[in-house]
Amino acid sequence: MLKIDCHAHILPETWPSLREKYGYGGFITLDHYAPGKARMMRDDGTFFRDITENTWNPEAILADMDAHHVDVMVLCTVPVLFNYWAQPEHGVDWSKFLNNHLSGIVSKYPQRFIGLGTLPLQDLDASIRELWRCTHELGLPGVQIGSNVNGKNLDDKVFFPLWEAAEEMGAAIFVHPWEMFGADRTSKYFQQWLVGMPAETTLAITSMIFGGVFDAFPKLKVMFAHAGGSFPFTLGRINHGFHARPDLCNVYRIKEPQEYVGRFWVDSITHNQDALRFLIALLGANRIAYGTDYPFPLGDLEHGQFILDMDDLSPAIKKQLFQDSVLEFLGLDAAQFDRPRPWSVRSVEDR
Amino acid sequence: MLKIDCHAHILPETWPSLREKYGYGGFITLDHYAPGKARMMRDDGTFFRDITENTWNPEAILADMDAHHVDVMVLCTVPVLFNYWAQPEHGVDWSKFLNNHLSGIVSKYPQRFIGLGTLPLQDLDASIRELWRCTHELGLPGVQIGSNVNGKNLDDKVFFPLWEAAEEMGAAIFVHPWEMFGADRTSKYFQQWLVGMPAETTLAITSMIFGGVFDAFPKLKVMFAHAGGSFPFTLGRINHGFHARPDLCNVYRIKEPQEYVGRFWVDSITHNQDALRFLIALLGANRIAYGTDYPFPLGDLEHGQFILDMDDLSPAIKKQLFQDSVLEFLGLDAAQFDRPRPWSVRSVEDR
Repeated sequence: MLKIDCHAHILPETWPSLREKYGYGGFITLDHYAPGKARMMRDDGTFFRDITENTWNPEAILADMDAHHVDVMVLCTVPVLFNYWAQPEHGVDWSKFLNNHLSGIVSKYPQRFIGLGTLPLQDLDASIRELWRCTHELGLPGVQIGSNVNGKNLDDKVFFPLWEAAEEMGAAIFVHPWEMFGADRTSKYFQQWLVGMPAETTLAITSMIFGGVFDAFPKLKVMFAHAGGSFPFTLGRINHGFHARPDLCNVYRIKEPQEYVGRFWVDSITHNQDALRFLIALLGANRIAYGTDYPFPLGDLEHGQFILDMDDLSPAIKKQLFQDSVLEFLGLDAAQFDRPRPWSVRSVEDR
Repeated sequence: MLKIDCHAHILPETWPSLREKYGYGGFITLDHYAPGKARMMRDDGTFFRDITENTWNPEAILADMDAHHVDVMVLCTVPVLFNYWAQPEHGVDWSKFLNNHLSGIVSKYPQRFIGLGTLPLQDLDASIRELWRCTHELGLPGVQIGSNVNGKNLDDKVFFPLWEAAEEMGAAIFVHPWEMFGADRTSKYFQQWLVGMPAETTLAITSMIFGGVFDAFPKLKVMFAHAGGSFPFTLGRINHGFHARPDLCNVYRIKEPQEYVGRFWVDSITHNQDALRFLIALLGANRIAYGTDYPFPLGDLEHGQFILDMDDLSPAIKKQLFQDSVLEFLGLDAAQFDRPRPWSVRSVEDR
């Protein structure tokens, strides 16, 4: 069994001042204030987040992976760097910069890293071209996108050409919550991340279901972060609501929401064994992939130990969670990554 | 075993025009347009919701209860009638009107109905007086309140005197989501109710935890609607976030969030057996009370049949869910309601 983390973030160690390059502000800069430490700053000088070397240095990431026996990580950018709000040509330029950087890391460590690119979603035509470049030139099997684009939910018809293109290319789409709705009410106690993010992810899923996206693009491959937010626990309510108010919910002649179970993947980031058990009962292990949100403190920085510790999960289920689900999502084969490593174990019983 | 529905709504059949009585608009009116049918209208003439006779007529409610072998219902008003935004003296007047009405129904059918009052939360002093009136004069063991008051979350210090008074009176507080955050992003497909409501309820719970309410008032009795929204499934994330960012989460020297499991009740409205199983594993059956959200279409209008159908739940667990949890929350005794009824069964095996 390979341990493949489907959800981890990376950013470049440095980048040019975008304020200077593009001629206006609003971007994130890095302040490397001490060895191995940096501050992500908004270019108006306000603080965003402290980060450490394992956010940008592949060697530091590999050291963490080795320590926790992680064979492979799927890396993508940090949502605050999406920059969907920037002028379209700058969004395109920035996406190319990030994708080229990520492609470079993946091509240097092809047996340890997989990359998901980013798209300039303020320009859909350019996004489709960049998706083609990611999947056909850069060796990235798909992209990460935000749960909304400048406030537009993912049911918006403007995104349908992207779904069509992704389906045709076989590109994997990883949806990450960001710019959470209702931020004015969740500003205290980290609640924007703890309450807003799961709600935002749920809204992304329901928007794609009710908007008819899964029906229109039956082969589109989508994964949602953080175990699908609160969708799994509220699916009963969502499904019941569909039947209670078809006038509101069934605008696009869809099936009942629970019929879309199986149509998308989620990661395993529940931080709770009971929640993961429920998730497996609801969605099936084949639609759940081990992920961590590494290297951020809200992530599972014990790298799936809570799953390995679950004696009631069979080795087959664990292999599904740690390896098979993400490979099916990405359309990749285990053989590409299956090399003996210092900690190598070929069966889950050995762990 | 008694079947006691902890979460049902009622409103008066008619009430005076509040626009005329108070001298400004913004209130809900009823348009009884056909026998047994009415429209809830905003007084600017816009439509809010269709309702039927079992929203206002106790005899119609009792007929539904008899048909579904419901012994007792806990009735409270419909959140859109909270009118917290109105001028304080009008909020007080309106709360008294609703509470007197509810008290009248309960006193007419004391073995079938329990009532939870409403408070004029735009005036905390008046709210405490009205809470006293509810619990000491009107025969109502507590009140229903909104998940926020004019956008103020329940951690706001302005509410602490209310918690103190409720704790002292032994009054039960039922928290219902309303005025959901992020409504601008959830306007389509009923998502304000399907996604926004569970998020709003979660925010109410985390606000009370992080705001130190449960610590400051250890005997305060609180129940949250709709199975606690998405709190149960995201508790792992919330708990992990508390440890990841104590600087943001632990402002009031609280315990870790999962330590508050057991400190509050939720209703059973999950519409899903797997979700209820998970909820029982997480919170314990003694903190979950059967509820329906009757008579609204998003509610469980099969009156707990999905719970009765769960063969893996023991009779003791079912008795806990259908009877004991709500009685403990309300501080009431089963003997008060335990009368032979046409469908009477004294054990769950007979059902």
